[in-house]
Amino acid sequence: MRNIKLTIEYDGKKYLGWQRLGDSDKTIQGKIESVLEQMTGVPVEIVGSGRTDAGAHAKGQVANFKTESTLSLLEMRDFLNRYLPQDIIIKQVSEASERFHARYHATGKQYSYYVWNSPVPTAFNRFYSFYYPHELDFGKMQEACERLIGEHDFQGFSSLKKTKKSTVRTIKELAIEQERDMLHITFVGDGFLYNMVRIIVGTLLEIGTGAKSVTTIDHVFQTKNRVDAGETVPSHGLFLDEVYY
Amino acid sequence: MRNIKLTIEYDGKKYLGWQRLGDSDKTIQGKIESVLEQMTGVPVEIVGSGRTDAGAHAKGQVANFKTESTLSLLEMRDFLNRYLPQDIIIKQVSEASERFHARYHATGKQYSYYVWNSPVPTAFNRFYSFYYPHELDFGKMQEACERLIGEHDFQGFSSLKKTKKSTVRTIKELAIEQERDMLHITFVGDGFLYNMVRIIVGTLLEIGTGAKSVTTIDHVFQTKNRVDAGETVPSHGLFLDEVYY
Repeated sequence: MRNIKLTIEYDGKKYLGWQRLGDSDKTIQGKIESVLEQMTGVPVEIVGSGRTDAGAHAKGQVANFKTESTLSLLEMRDFLNRYLPQDIIIKQVSEASERFHARYHATGKQYSYYVWNSPVPTAFNRFYSFYYPHELDFGKMQEACERLIGEHDFQGFSSLKKTKKSTVRTIKELAIEQERDMLHITFVGDGFLYNMVRIIVGTLLEIGTGAKSVTTIDHVFQTKNRVDAGETVPSHGLFLDEVYY
Repeated sequence: MRNIKLTIEYDGKKYLGWQRLGDSDKTIQGKIESVLEQMTGVPVEIVGSGRTDAGAHAKGQVANFKTESTLSLLEMRDFLNRYLPQDIIIKQVSEASERFHARYHATGKQYSYYVWNSPVPTAFNRFYSFYYPHELDFGKMQEACERLIGEHDFQGFSSLKKTKKSTVRTIKELAIEQERDMLHITFVGDGFLYNMVRIIVGTLLEIGTGAKSVTTIDHVFQTKNRVDAGETVPSHGLFLDEVYY
């Protein structure tokens, strides 16, 4: 059996997210599995590095699947790109070691969140950024980022129900770049809890407007209580950029 | 009467182009005029700097209109952005001199054309660039650009029917930039004939693949014959960036 690794880009606008839901045709995983079945003649199950939310995007999602197909890697790539919808692109197909597992072996991820921060909206980025016209204090947001970086219990920054699993994660990098009217917020970490990126961005924005203070970060680390953090920003500004192994 | 100047961004994907066609709701001009009538209570006619093709985009189209409205410029901008569809954005509203005319007074324009040049398509730029997977010789394309810059009779690079009007135009700048897999071709000139940008890009690409030679440019200047130039590339890679006055 070959173990094939896929690197995938998708515009998540029309989808219910990565993970297949029964026979639904509205998930990225479902779409790819159905073209792989077309390609190999047998049902194929793929393992993604993790879920992505309904409406969220990816520039470098990773998945793997086992197959007895004898097609070359380029033939697979071109078959998939020919038959997949145009908003799902297979950027790379490579041969992985027999034991490679896209979820278990991931050591970290990079996410980006885009915020359109201008009194005037954007025609081109309206599906790929959150429109937030309020004035922001970038100094304070930067200070908040410094408090978030490192190993912390992020339970209060997630929508998880109570769980026995550890909610301690490490954010290695958290940077805010301004490119004209677009804020680009980059997260690199060993793993992210459910909604963690979107809740942290919501909290940073409320700190930026002054609705919350910088010390909110430490407060949420202490109380571990979701209601002390900011709103969850919408999924359409969120991109999974890269998965590290 | 006030004379109001609008700077407009639009995603042209769903539209039949800038110019109003009868009562059609499917043009940018028609959409803006209908919201201006809502705003002022009377029919309003706007003058654009020029047409844009069906499916082509703009980051800085300019138009003007006369009105007796007493609304402030910011009130106009916000009213328009609230009631226009989300793919048409009024970036700026300013007071122009009584005699300002968006078409007659334009002294030049900048257009961009985007080409996605990779063996693998793009999920995010599929409506905003032309997918052209063939290998290109950028040196030759650059040479062709140098031959196009300057004052020439561009009749052979346009889809105009025979006309008595001059088809001499000046291209002041013509540059090809490579940003990873995206080619960004920028045109600055005093004016552009019908389909001129799209035919020049088509010709440059055929020179890039070797299907045509660099001297094609001079040949088309001589014959003034449309059939000697390259194919017209699709409108969805074309952006009107800026209008100069």
